[in-house]
Amino acid sequence: MVMPLLNCDMGESFGNWTLGMDDDVMPFVDCANIACGFHASDPHVMRRTVALAARHDVRIGAHPAYPDLMGFGRRSLACTPAEVEDMVLYQIGALAGLCRAEGVTIQYVKPHGALYNDMARDPALLEGVMRAVHAYDASLPLMVMATADPEPFRTLAAEMGLSIWFETFADRAYDAQGHLVSRRLPNAVHHDEATIVAQAVALARGEALTASDGSALRLPCDTICVHGDNPESIAAVRAIREAFGRLASA
Amino acid sequence: MVMPLLNCDMGESFGNWTLGMDDDVMPFVDCANIACGFHASDPHVMRRTVALAARHDVRIGAHPAYPDLMGFGRRSLACTPAEVEDMVLYQIGALAGLCRAEGVTIQYVKPHGALYNDMARDPALLEGVMRAVHAYDASLPLMVMATADPEPFRTLAAEMGLSIWFETFADRAYDAQGHLVSRRLPNAVHHDEATIVAQAVALARGEALTASDGSALRLPCDTICVHGDNPESIAAVRAIREAFGRLASA
Amino acid sequence: MVMPLLNCDMGESFGNWTLGMDDDVMPFVDCANIACGFHASDPHVMRRTVALAARHDVRIGAHPAYPDLMGFGRRSLACTPAEVEDMVLYQIGALAGLCRAEGVTIQYVKPHGALYNDMARDPALLEGVMRAVHAYDASLPLMVMATADPEPFRTLAAEMGLSIWFETFADRAYDAQGHLVSRRLPNAVHHDEATIVAQAVALARGEALTASDGSALRLPCDTICVHGDNPESIAAVRAIREAFGRLASA
Amino acid sequence: MVMPLLNCDMGESFGNWTLGMDDDVMPFVDCANIACGFHASDPHVMRRTVALAARHDVRIGAHPAYPDLMGFGRRSLACTPAEVEDMVLYQIGALAGLCRAEGVTIQYVKPHGALYNDMARDPALLEGVMRAVHAYDASLPLMVMATADPEPFRTLAAEMGLSIWFETFADRAYDAQGHLVSRRLPNAVHHDEATIVAQAVALARGEALTASDGSALRLPCDTICVHGDNPESIAAVRAIREAFGRLASA
Repeated sequence: MVMPLLNCDMGESFGNWTLGMDDDVMPFVDCANIACGFHASDPHVMRRTVALAARHDVRIGAHPAYPDLMGFGRRSLACTPAEVEDMVLYQIGALAGLCRAEGVTIQYVKPHGALYNDMARDPALLEGVMRAVHAYDASLPLMVMATADPEPFRTLAAEMGLSIWFETFADRAYDAQGHLVSRRLPNAVHHDEATIVAQAVALARGEALTASDGSALRLPCDTICVHGDNPESIAAVRAIREAFGRLASA
Repeated sequence: MVMPLLNCDMGESFGNWTLGMDDDVMPFVDCANIACGFHASDPHVMRRTVALAARHDVRIGAHPAYPDLMGFGRRSLACTPAEVEDMVLYQIGALAGLCRAEGVTIQYVKPHGALYNDMARDPALLEGVMRAVHAYDASLPLMVMATADPEPFRTLAAEMGLSIWFETFADRAYDAQGHLVSRRLPNAVHHDEATIVAQAVALARGEALTASDGSALRLPCDTICVHGDNPESIAAVRAIREAFGRLASA
Repeated sequence: MVMPLLNCDMGESFGNWTLGMDDDVMPFVDCANIACGFHASDPHVMRRTVALAARHDVRIGAHPAYPDLMGFGRRSLACTPAEVEDMVLYQIGALAGLCRAEGVTIQYVKPHGALYNDMARDPALLEGVMRAVHAYDASLPLMVMATADPEPFRTLAAEMGLSIWFETFADRAYDAQGHLVSRRLPNAVHHDEATIVAQAVALARGEALTASDGSALRLPCDTICVHGDNPESIAAVRAIREAFGRLASA
Repeated sequence: MVMPLLNCDMGESFGNWTLGMDDDVMPFVDCANIACGFHASDPHVMRRTVALAARHDVRIGAHPAYPDLMGFGRRSLACTPAEVEDMVLYQIGALAGLCRAEGVTIQYVKPHGALYNDMARDPALLEGVMRAVHAYDASLPLMVMATADPEPFRTLAAEMGLSIWFETFADRAYDAQGHLVSRRLPNAVHHDEATIVAQAVALARGEALTASDGSALRLPCDTICVHGDNPESIAAVRAIREAFGRLASA
């Protein structure tokens, strides 16, 4: 049984500002989504984060975003697909530059924040991102949000000659279509560690989750997003890691 | 006889602002120093400029700078050598990202503006830049300002395992040490095309120039910097190109 | 008869990049919309533009925008009304700082580009802008796009204790609702000077225009937007100015 | 006896990044130096910080800097005095814009970081800053670093028609000329609270300090810089405040 990869946003400090407990969470994840300077990070932070990932044998992913440091890449910016394509190429390349100095390479791409959400809704934007990844290195998987109906994404990726990784969340509630329940609604986020671990295990086993309307929801799951923001979230990552260890050896 | 390469700053437009007559000058140069987004350019401009260079079979150089769009990279910024190293890696990589989409590669590195001048004066900063270029791809030559005493640069480059290209100017007066005469002094810049061409030819032939104090000045010259800012400067580039053609076939 | 004020975007150069023929168009306009550093301009350009406006006795307007230099403020950025409110306060204040050094004051506010368009569609965003202008100086008029139905804007402005100026265009076609015909459609922009002057005169006289569907369209018009981008647009401004001179003395 | 004012850098968060314990230290200081967006802060953070200062009746100072978010304004940037003048006007004005919305006004100006240090060494730069403050509002004091020889600063300020406040540090060692001992040297920073309070009290009483070479050093002291970075520094601020209370009532 292949376990889903645990991926985590990293390298989101910027200059004098520190964010995230990268040193603490790095030992427990498989994939580090490293910010590329458009929503967070700077060349120095990127270098340090790449080195940290390399030390822990963690796969490095480019985490490109809209150019909006003030908004942390969380605000949609009405870019054309061609603009997004070039921005993504720029950011993958920039991270790859730092990777060269540490003797490692980028292994996948996960767009960040508003860009990640916008491309899930806008096929033209998604194609722009896919063109960028394909032009950079067609062997790099592109991470996209899992939904109840992954076929359109699979079809588009196949047409573009690209592979995709479906991403799920262990600490978020889903609706019947497989979309994340909005954080503005009650019970959108799981805070209980046991619940989080149980959802991660169900996703890993390919079992159905219970959607917010009570229906059964089956999601494709190549990777699960985890968080290194605070001690609680890191404890949850460790608990998922241990559960996966038991699962793998079972 | 190997002619010096003609290099020109390119891709210095930014968003809605246009600068430089790249389309007009590209056919006449050997090397395009392409801005990487820190002093000028943006992902879209970089992509377009890379494509233009590729169409004309012009070698692409990364043109990294201090992060200062407002000052066009012309103001010294007191960065540490380690900061500069990472900034240069970031920018080379970013340009390489756009190059991949056009099927070409970076062939040399020329730091821009204040960074170029600062590294000529500060060996620690120069080493930082050299570490970056070496880490990215040790086969890429680094362009440095020619002086009357190139040995220290050759020695340092050899120690670092890097090759360098010495750059001269056809339209600038030099002092006896081989430094450019400050633009604030009279006769610092040659405006007469015949004078510019004559200086380019002398540099190509390895003949001595007459320094500002009347002494003979011999400069190493792998490449000559030319300009695509206006019709006059482009006419000068064409005139140099034609003179080099005659020289090569002589 | 009170003539509509001719307003023009100014101060859109940035660092080493020049945009607009401010010196040439300034003598012929009433109002200079001066960029505040978020979509264009920098402190030095702002100072110079304020001084130029002051020399020609032209009213100075703050021209705040989304923070997007690369996109020239033309791309919508999904900010909250509260974020926009603070961004507008920041930019008005910044321009006012430069105005103090030239002994003049800001006399109105015209949001730029995507922010201008977004606030015309989104009442919550418009309220955010209005709160900013009101908090800064409730006597400053806010420029808004004229439409066939100006009452909702008048009502909201009155509730907020703010005055508004309706802006029209002499060189753009309108649809029956009084919205600008998209530039992607044919005949959206008038290029013929006589047509432009005739539309300006009709707007000044309060006469109906012919909308794109042939219907009569009456627009409120406190000010007309003109352009200083190139010699043709400046010639059109002079022609409107002369026509208004004849109208005023008639 | 007039106590020196306690001033503290504030509003140095940026977007999603938090820095400084502003809420905790605000009750104990007299003056809040509020970042203006060039080295830290953004319009939203500035608004919130102004409101916090207003609630505690703390005087608001503009804290302008070189435009270098990545370097937190700590790296010298080779700007001309005229560029600095306009940058300072821009930043004072921007903060004043947010102040208007909270019904308060700026009461002094303290340049930040590298700009603060550079102007202490470069009279032309200092004049540029002084021209900006004078043009904005000649009644606003400009904070400058105290030294053993304050006369040149007093003379220049008098010539420019500006008042100055000399700033000292309670937690830093001084050399015989009244310059701060470099942080790279041992014993440059006092960590012991009693030592810090004793130095603050000596400065307040106009008593001599012991310089690093053992000589007696007398410094002018209108204001003392304190820090809100961590619980220890805030405890020191409270201890200084209490000592000053005893001093004032003695």
